[in-house]
Amino acid sequence: MNYRTVLDKIYINSKDFPKMGVVSTSIPELAKVHPDKFGIHLTTINGEEIGVGNSNEKFSIQSVSKALTVALAFSKCGEEIWNRVGVEPSGNPFNSLVQLEFEKGIPRNPFINAGALVIADILVTVLQNPKEDLLHFIRTISGFETIDFNLKVAQSEKETGFRNAALANFLKSFGNIQNEVDVVLDFYFHQCSIEMTCKELAHAFFIFANEGKTKKGNQILTTSQVKRLNALMQTCGFYDESGEFTYRVGLPGKSGIGGGIAALLPKQFAIACWSPRLNEKGNSELGMFALEQLTTETGMSIF
Amino acid sequence: MNYRTVLDKIYINSKDFPKMGVVSTSIPELAKVHPDKFGIHLTTINGEEIGVGNSNEKFSIQSVSKALTVALAFSKCGEEIWNRVGVEPSGNPFNSLVQLEFEKGIPRNPFINAGALVIADILVTVLQNPKEDLLHFIRTISGFETIDFNLKVAQSEKETGFRNAALANFLKSFGNIQNEVDVVLDFYFHQCSIEMTCKELAHAFFIFANEGKTKKGNQILTTSQVKRLNALMQTCGFYDESGEFTYRVGLPGKSGIGGGIAALLPKQFAIACWSPRLNEKGNSELGMFALEQLTTETGMSIF
Amino acid sequence: MNYRTVLDKIYINSKDFPKMGVVSTSIPELAKVHPDKFGIHLTTINGEEIGVGNSNEKFSIQSVSKALTVALAFSKCGEEIWNRVGVEPSGNPFNSLVQLEFEKGIPRNPFINAGALVIADILVTVLQNPKEDLLHFIRTISGFETIDFNLKVAQSEKETGFRNAALANFLKSFGNIQNEVDVVLDFYFHQCSIEMTCKELAHAFFIFANEGKTKKGNQILTTSQVKRLNALMQTCGFYDESGEFTYRVGLPGKSGIGGGIAALLPKQFAIACWSPRLNEKGNSELGMFALEQLTTETGMSIF
Amino acid sequence: MNYRTVLDKIYINSKDFPKMGVVSTSIPELAKVHPDKFGIHLTTINGEEIGVGNSNEKFSIQSVSKALTVALAFSKCGEEIWNRVGVEPSGNPFNSLVQLEFEKGIPRNPFINAGALVIADILVTVLQNPKEDLLHFIRTISGFETIDFNLKVAQSEKETGFRNAALANFLKSFGNIQNEVDVVLDFYFHQCSIEMTCKELAHAFFIFANEGKTKKGNQILTTSQVKRLNALMQTCGFYDESGEFTYRVGLPGKSGIGGGIAALLPKQFAIACWSPRLNEKGNSELGMFALEQLTTETGMSIF
Repeated sequence: MNYRTVLDKIYINSKDFPKMGVVSTSIPELAKVHPDKFGIHLTTINGEEIGVGNSNEKFSIQSVSKALTVALAFSKCGEEIWNRVGVEPSGNPFNSLVQLEFEKGIPRNPFINAGALVIADILVTVLQNPKEDLLHFIRTISGFETIDFNLKVAQSEKETGFRNAALANFLKSFGNIQNEVDVVLDFYFHQCSIEMTCKELAHAFFIFANEGKTKKGNQILTTSQVKRLNALMQTCGFYDESGEFTYRVGLPGKSGIGGGIAALLPKQFAIACWSPRLNEKGNSELGMFALEQLTTETGMSIF
Repeated sequence: MNYRTVLDKIYINSKDFPKMGVVSTSIPELAKVHPDKFGIHLTTINGEEIGVGNSNEKFSIQSVSKALTVALAFSKCGEEIWNRVGVEPSGNPFNSLVQLEFEKGIPRNPFINAGALVIADILVTVLQNPKEDLLHFIRTISGFETIDFNLKVAQSEKETGFRNAALANFLKSFGNIQNEVDVVLDFYFHQCSIEMTCKELAHAFFIFANEGKTKKGNQILTTSQVKRLNALMQTCGFYDESGEFTYRVGLPGKSGIGGGIAALLPKQFAIACWSPRLNEKGNSELGMFALEQLTTETGMSIF
Repeated sequence: MNYRTVLDKIYINSKDFPKMGVVSTSIPELAKVHPDKFGIHLTTINGEEIGVGNSNEKFSIQSVSKALTVALAFSKCGEEIWNRVGVEPSGNPFNSLVQLEFEKGIPRNPFINAGALVIADILVTVLQNPKEDLLHFIRTISGFETIDFNLKVAQSEKETGFRNAALANFLKSFGNIQNEVDVVLDFYFHQCSIEMTCKELAHAFFIFANEGKTKKGNQILTTSQVKRLNALMQTCGFYDESGEFTYRVGLPGKSGIGGGIAALLPKQFAIACWSPRLNEKGNSELGMFALEQLTTETGMSIF
Repeated sequence: MNYRTVLDKIYINSKDFPKMGVVSTSIPELAKVHPDKFGIHLTTINGEEIGVGNSNEKFSIQSVSKALTVALAFSKCGEEIWNRVGVEPSGNPFNSLVQLEFEKGIPRNPFINAGALVIADILVTVLQNPKEDLLHFIRTISGFETIDFNLKVAQSEKETGFRNAALANFLKSFGNIQNEVDVVLDFYFHQCSIEMTCKELAHAFFIFANEGKTKKGNQILTTSQVKRLNALMQTCGFYDESGEFTYRVGLPGKSGIGGGIAALLPKQFAIACWSPRLNEKGNSELGMFALEQLTTETGMSIF
């Protein structure tokens, strides 16, 4: 089975996919995107590069960025980050405060918002110029120097991000935010506003498929760290739909409410797809369907 | 049975009361108060005034203020305030966010912090000069012109009030805060910082005992409004210990983490007591015990 | 103001009351009752007896029985019953298991199902012939010898009472049921099946209004016990609508899904009303409205 | 790297492993096992069979059986089983009732007790002789005809299984148990009482490693079904420690409070280990450590 053939087929099938789900309106700036955008890019260990649809168009990566910030924090601080955030699926929506209260301010995992805010706090502490350094990291691992924040989106998130402000203050009340709340939120809103194409995102996630090494061969994470981050994406990458994604697709990955999903098969490929229509759990309807077809058609998954 | 005799007896008994409970350290400024302060003041419909112990010493009324702000909001806006806050006991600690999430941003009652923040938001909207007007209201109902904020306490709360900031932002995310979060918090931290003596507080609560009228005869609330506020204090005035207080004491009342408790028997008396040692629910140990003795000795309670 | 006049007025108004709410279908046998039945009976300390509507027709008292069983247990065992069940409002529906899990098998209060099952377990232990003795107790306090179980209703509850079976097993798993689960459930289903008229129920609740004494002058409970049970009914008698009932009506009372409500004003009167249409909280729509009118029209309430 | 070498090393290291954790006392019969038992058996696609320690000693498989019952139900009924039980990690302890209440009787996944009870109910419905047929199924997939229930353990569970009785009744109250509660519980207690050796268990789990085929080549499950069950074990197999197990070990698997863990690497091997000392989440301390060493030493995991 040939990846090109499968992706072409998925792309053709996407035309008939019911226009279910809606574009996120949680951030006004995001609501402006055209709902029928759809692109995929796949990049393999063997050097294949396959893109279909709007795979070279920038979109807001939103929570997909959480996989990249935790990778950066893990590479900088090692296992000690798990003292402040767990590795368990939460079983709750991504922005829930309930669990945090029962668990005294230790977020279940770094992919729910509370956990990502703790990771943001860690990065604000350890990075010299947090926002610039994050951009630099993502440019380095992906090899694309033009990746940048969308300042309008960041500003839009700031103006409407009361739930995240609630989470950050709540974490601070438990002592699990060390910097100023506003500084951490500013970093977090910027990280979510990053815009990338499917191709760029697939290349960034390539390090997770390639035992920690970039396309150019730079070792960013150790083999062990990559395994652990992949494990984390498998169990927690899709909020309270992580089990469903694992069940249907069987690849570690991370989604965002911009409609992006990045996933990978260890030692084989990294892939990113984008379709802004979201299901009620906040994951891309068509994106999940596309990835399910990929693993079904190729018979390739981690299981 | 004579009130003076009972209060003297309670005061004498207080000397032997075990020094249980600890002064609240949630706000650094509050932690400075001497733990063994104890005072009571009782004021009756018939004009009796009885004070024992440190009844003329100022203390931080903290959440006792919630009964006064809801009275002011009720008098200004009537029943419509219940569209934004409920009248049910919460069954949870005063600063819990859990219930708020399940109930989509409508706090259970105006005496948990979330509900008090909504009342604060209402007052910020309807009052010309919110902070000044609140002071004016409390001075008017109590008849004491010197009642004031303690600005150091207000500032101290601001610097450490991350849980309240979380609640306010959370409410805002549900659309149940209409003003700027910072403005509402500033009002709230000031209301909590108000300092009063037992005598002043008893006089302020006199309106709840006297069918809405002050000592001087000004009708502040209607008879019906007073009944409803008393009902609310009865079921919700002591956080998740409201049932216990009703069971042991049987009077409508409101407590604060400054160690103050104000209570009343309709058409008979209003009373305020103060002892800063708190039990684990955040209510004054000795204060509750004193009021239990009062109703036991006199046989007077609403039941 | 004359009680007869007020009750007649309430009865006339009831004709125009919107036919809101539905008869409980949780137990098939209960669903057979005519939805438009409506009766009230009021009995005063001064010996007045006033009945309107279907006040002499039997209905299933259901959870109203919980006030009677806790009274019996309290009279037999005293304060130690509170080691196994609390006195706090639950803030949750009557048959919730959630809180029980967090609180390790100690139900919040004796009026939620879990708490009533613990009380049933206590009675099964301390009574010689539990079911007969309970009947005897209710006959004694009310003065009506014909009060009895409805065995068809008891059987119907048994066949469909899986939620209660879940609660009882759950309590047993925490060690807070000492007898066989089936024996406790049998007692509980019988107690709920008791049928009484409004008049009989008002007379039974008379002991709560009359400082523990029956019409005939027998002292069943101490003054102190009565106050405490009244306090408990005030804060917990109407499930997660207890605050609303206290706010609107301002009398201690207890409701059942048969549509009955019994309430009282200490030292004045006991009252029972019955209308089978329930609101979504499981309380009688018209019954609550009737009692609200009573306290509004007479100006009499505990507040 | 040679499996024999690794297992020998793990076995030697186990001697120094701190004697942390305690044998489950939830079932009196289970509490009798010697805490220091330890065995591993690994069976590969290539026909290797490696056992160390007490690998040929029977133990109570307990919840490991849930992976086998869901496999049987899946093979009989296909995808429709997911209408009655989900595929999401629960984020809660294995015997929690809380989530079930919020989610109206649909258990999160088939590996928490509530979900396993629903699967038991399905099997009771579709199997001719449920208990015998289950035994037959396990004997067939493993190739060991002597596998059997331990009737004393089954009886012991019945006498103390109030939490499971609560769950079953609760499910029944939501209509998600179709057979008699007692019949379903009887089946469930028997399934948990099954005794197997590490070798037998590894052979039973071999079908999950071998694309649905037994050692003898019988196709029990389709390739697709196996992938999905592996996915499910990955995200949900270790209760609220599933994330931790995935993070540390990176293999699909299932644990039981008898101290057993069965796991597998697709297309490579199945493995079972046994050590009765449990951590606070109810998983075998030494078992998890052994499997972590295995994947660390061999570098083999699904990630």
